[in-house]
Amino acid sequence: MTTAPERITDLYPTRGATEVAVPRQDPVVWSDPDVTGPITAGALADYERDGFLAIDQLITPDEVSVYRAELERIISDPGLRADERSIIEPQSQEIRTVFEVHKISEVFAGLVRDPRVVGRARQILGSDVYVHQSRVNVKPGFGASGFYWHSDFETWHAEDGLPNMRTVSVSIALTQNYDTNGGLMIMPGSHKTFLGCAGETPRDNYKKSLQMQDAGTPSDEALVKFADAHGIKLFTGQAGSATWFDCNCMHGSGDNITPYPRSNVFIVFNSVENTAVEPFAAPIRRPEFIGARDFTPVR
Amino acid sequence: MTTAPERITDLYPTRGATEVAVPRQDPVVWSDPDVTGPITAGALADYERDGFLAIDQLITPDEVSVYRAELERIISDPGLRADERSIIEPQSQEIRTVFEVHKISEVFAGLVRDPRVVGRARQILGSDVYVHQSRVNVKPGFGASGFYWHSDFETWHAEDGLPNMRTVSVSIALTQNYDTNGGLMIMPGSHKTFLGCAGETPRDNYKKSLQMQDAGTPSDEALVKFADAHGIKLFTGQAGSATWFDCNCMHGSGDNITPYPRSNVFIVFNSVENTAVEPFAAPIRRPEFIGARDFTPVR
Repeated sequence: MTTAPERITDLYPTRGATEVAVPRQDPVVWSDPDVTGPITAGALADYERDGFLAIDQLITPDEVSVYRAELERIISDPGLRADERSIIEPQSQEIRTVFEVHKISEVFAGLVRDPRVVGRARQILGSDVYVHQSRVNVKPGFGASGFYWHSDFETWHAEDGLPNMRTVSVSIALTQNYDTNGGLMIMPGSHKTFLGCAGETPRDNYKKSLQMQDAGTPSDEALVKFADAHGIKLFTGQAGSATWFDCNCMHGSGDNITPYPRSNVFIVFNSVENTAVEPFAAPIRRPEFIGARDFTPVR
Repeated sequence: MTTAPERITDLYPTRGATEVAVPRQDPVVWSDPDVTGPITAGALADYERDGFLAIDQLITPDEVSVYRAELERIISDPGLRADERSIIEPQSQEIRTVFEVHKISEVFAGLVRDPRVVGRARQILGSDVYVHQSRVNVKPGFGASGFYWHSDFETWHAEDGLPNMRTVSVSIALTQNYDTNGGLMIMPGSHKTFLGCAGETPRDNYKKSLQMQDAGTPSDEALVKFADAHGIKLFTGQAGSATWFDCNCMHGSGDNITPYPRSNVFIVFNSVENTAVEPFAAPIRRPEFIGARDFTPVR
């Protein structure tokens, strides 16, 4: 006996004819309040309200040195430069991002498995988790461009097929984030509204969108509304600090004209109860190094 | 009987074959310590050391409204849009800067003459002063680009013929400067070193350099040295706040992806004892709306 495949409702329509804002249909914190973890109840309540959680020192200075050395090794590996997982900055021709670092590097795989890291992800998502995406970013200074406003979930839903907002990212700083070198900006509380964007997804959207936002970009009018409602918070902190943030936060970053590079490791954890299906608003899936199809839980 | 024209030594060679850093040859504060003015002795000492002076409220909220309305009137004047004194943002095609506002507008002429404004300029420069340049700037948000690192004096010496560092700028905020919308960044103390830049000045340099830095741009190596020595300070403040800064401060600004426009009035006061001669390192003078040749003191 066979059963018809389960039909998944699209809770968050996007890439249609018009831009439309709808309330979030999912919890922000998925774990049972009785289950404790590395995040205190108060911090978890803040995360629920704001959509982010900043940790002053997630990893020690010694560990920062290890991960920086590994980052240097990766971005100076000539073999990896030609790899499709490496993204080159158009102007400087330097490597800006390398994807799937938890598969490329045993060192970063270890970071993903670290209880300080995966433990917080499990606590927020209330289940076992797997890595939907991992990458190292280098914003080299002297004019490196930033990223325009977007919700990650809008893309992961439209182009990777994540059904629900049960996904959390952590950005771990490997260099100091000053108030001047193009740090992460989040609109606190924006994660409680889903902004469905206007415009159909081109077939090769991901190639362009890694360097420049296009489809999935909020309108000026929507950004005015969001910013007026929520304000904008800029994250600063020492190397070793981390920012956890919900998949639906409206976020972006400015350019970096300072001489201070900004490097970080970025890991996206998804709940094993929210594994990717077919894209909700794109003709084809993005490559697996950007949106994983291996749902093996992190152990 | 005639006398030979006085020969003016070039204290600050620039635009040569190589980049070269030399110590400042001029005082920062030119007034007699016994002469009092709107700036306290302590604040004046800070200005001498850092090269800048931030004022929380130089003009009142009511005055801000008046100047903002005047700014709106100017940038929406169709006649002025075609004027060479208006600079258009390449991407958005919106007006980004209007020069010579103290001549275009009686309202801004009044601001220049205001004792809170011209009084501070006289106190810093120790003499009567005239306006070398004035402008209003609008950084409209949603991705407006910034300005790369530069010393204004480098340009004003090379291209306008200002002999000495006896010039001070004031930027008066007409909108709030957040930590996120591309505010002014200064390297404190950088005004005590002159960085002579490499590269000859093209004939029409000013046209390009108003939109994008080119000749007169410091090298990456110099910026690393300057930033390591001095750090980088980002200026934030309410509308009505002001930043006074020495002509030789190394400064710049990032882009502005927020929806919050950043508008200001910018006035450059030069000492009447430091009037412009011929350019020290450019084939021709820049137009008078950028580098004044009318040395009438502000009264």
